Amino acid sequence: MNITFSPIGTIRSPFQDVRNMPIQPTGAKDTEGQVLVEADYAEGLDDLEGFSHIILLYHFHQSEGFHLKVTPFMDNEPRGLFSTRAPRRPNGIGLSIVQLLKRDGRILHIRGVDVLDGTPLLDIKPYVPKFDSAEVSSIGWLEKKAQKSETLRSDDRFLAK
Amino acid sequence: MNITFSPIGTIRSPFQDVRNMPIQPTGAKDTEGQVLVEADYAEGLDDLEGFSHIILLYHFHQSEGFHLKVTPFMDNEPRGLFSTRAPRRPNGIGLSIVQLLKRDGRILHIRGVDVLDGTPLLDIKPYVPKFDSAEVSSIGWLEKKAQKSETLRSDDRFLAK
Repeated sequence: MNITFSPIGTIRSPFQDVRNMPIQPTGAKDTEGQVLVEADYAEGLDDLEGFSHIILLYHFHQSEGFHLKVTPFMDNEPRGLFSTRAPRRPNGIGLSIVQLLKRDGRILHIRGVDVLDGTPLLDIKPYVPKFDSAEVSSIGWLEKKAQKSETLRSDDRFLAK
Repeated sequence: MNITFSPIGTIRSPFQDVRNMPIQPTGAKDTEGQVLVEADYAEGLDDLEGFSHIILLYHFHQSEGFHLKVTPFMDNEPRGLFSTRAPRRPNGIGLSIVQLLKRDGRILHIRGVDVLDGTPLLDIKPYVPKFDSAEVSSIGWLEKKAQKSETLRSDDRFLAK
């Protein structure tokens, strides 16, 4: 069964190359970018400006294929793919929570963008802590490693083959 | 430009009907379900058990079409679609954070599932507060309304036409 999606816009960022990118929004806290939404969907952005943070779902368009075991940027051991945020996945959907600075028609000005310039946008949702945050008791192999995400940069391991 | 995805599994829950469902995980805190992952992808679940919470991305397979203005379950006024979590969207991708109770081969036992039984699964990611939570300063029209999500149930407004 195939499910077909079509981008509703594009994400603009200063990152032109999959290599040497921040690997999570934590590494791009002050990085600003834009979401350009297709004119056909602009009306759907109404009321979004009330939210300080939004969820972007997008397509990892530069990452093709996948392996079920990967060595993540933040670790030295192979891990099950679904326990990682590696961009090469069976369905290459990326998820980032960014700060919404301003809406200007069909342009959203955002901060904390860790996404490649030109990334196809699939969906925007309001970020609501009551729905989207959880009190975790464990974060697996990322324990003591998530901190690294602030400074670590990507390399070429998840480039399209 | 079309992007084609293919489900990697199925979400099982007690909810058989789009009507009278919890509208967010907050309304289904104690509801247990399972994620059945296709055998081909089972190895990718390794290391996931270390995480107490996971992110499920799935297809709103019972919701077709969309309107750019919708009246959400939690409100009485029409709102821009992207400022809502309505399931009828240009790209019908749903997002839920659930508690991971146990992995049993290619079956994940989960709690806090607000998803329709039989929902096609697109991706699983580990939930990491450092990446996936934000300190918000505003939640727009949901201010004073998000609380309702604990008790409010869906009706037929987002049924496939």
